[in-house]
Amino acid sequence: MTNQAPGDGFAAVERVMRAQRAVRLFDGRPVDDALIERALRAAVHAPSGGNSQPWRFIVVRDRETKRRLGVIFDELGKQLYGDRAPERTPWQDVPLLIAVCTETDRAQAGASIFPVVQNLLLALHAQGLGSVLTTRWKVREAEVRPLLGLPETLEAHAILPVGWPARRHGRGRRRPIEEVTFRESFGRPWRPDYSGRTGGAS
Amino acid sequence: MTNQAPGDGFAAVERVMRAQRAVRLFDGRPVDDALIERALRAAVHAPSGGNSQPWRFIVVRDRETKRRLGVIFDELGKQLYGDRAPERTPWQDVPLLIAVCTETDRAQAGASIFPVVQNLLLALHAQGLGSVLTTRWKVREAEVRPLLGLPETLEAHAILPVGWPARRHGRGRRRPIEEVTFRESFGRPWRPDYSGRTGGAS
Repeated sequence: MTNQAPGDGFAAVERVMRAQRAVRLFDGRPVDDALIERALRAAVHAPSGGNSQPWRFIVVRDRETKRRLGVIFDELGKQLYGDRAPERTPWQDVPLLIAVCTETDRAQAGASIFPVVQNLLLALHAQGLGSVLTTRWKVREAEVRPLLGLPETLEAHAILPVGWPARRHGRGRRRPIEEVTFRESFGRPWRPDYSGRTGGAS
Repeated sequence: MTNQAPGDGFAAVERVMRAQRAVRLFDGRPVDDALIERALRAAVHAPSGGNSQPWRFIVVRDRETKRRLGVIFDELGKQLYGDRAPERTPWQDVPLLIAVCTETDRAQAGASIFPVVQNLLLALHAQGLGSVLTTRWKVREAEVRPLLGLPETLEAHAILPVGWPARRHGRGRRRPIEEVTFRESFGRPWRPDYSGRTGGAS
């Protein structure tokens, strides 16, 4: 019963996961609607609690809206990071933004919204586009809401700037899984058993 | 600068996203550690706030631990859904569980943990394995914590049962993106511009 997805799909999926970067600077080229639609159509197959699909996407190309969101973003960045903020995105010049919202402020919203956000990021990167997950909007939501036309019942969880990466990105740094993976109980080291005794059907 | 990921990777990624299902029933075959390690190595390239990588994974094969977690899960399911609960997973017979935890109860934990959870689900499915995202654990965390050996500083956000799907799953039902996507402002319909005027570099 391994026919749900072709086995050779793993290598392609892994390659895209490894290539995903926080892309904050873009070259000047525009991004066509068709690529965004393609990414969204794939992304919405993400799981959500009870298949509730609480996501709503707002694609923003208006330069003034992008600029105003950028001002908020940079002000929050300065509060969070001071002068150690990462490279600054020129928000008004980004081809487009995708705001990912939920229709109600659900207790479990994170579990039902960030899987689709991650699918969307992967689907954009798989097409050669770049983006970065930004989530700091809640503290300024009274200002963000009118910019996106959101009623009180909607909340913006993430805004993704999207464009063609301005430069080639190197490898991402990650802790080795041996440091973050445990067996049976937290603190007991993960030492994989390659003997095949645990199964090995692949 | 589209060289971050090969363009032809999109089709493979999309196929895996579309094939992902909530798999709750498994056939009897065991699952080798090597497949889990492979999925984890790919998954940890997910983004997290400030690249904090707050995730900790606990791989559980112990039958008694699985059984006890299953009892909690089913009791919560009955409270949540009554008799309308989805098909019940025989937890003690599932080859293994992966608990995904964070080291501290961070305000933004959802944004930093569910991208890696979604990567993990995709990486498992891409290998033909099945799993389902379960997140209802927090209300019973006093009981869950000792079963996973978690100190007070760790929280279990998700537990993923993993195995070979017992049956072939059909297509997933999703609302068309036209119903959940808007342009510039919530409520304004998304009508993609295929004229190429917005760019079209692909």
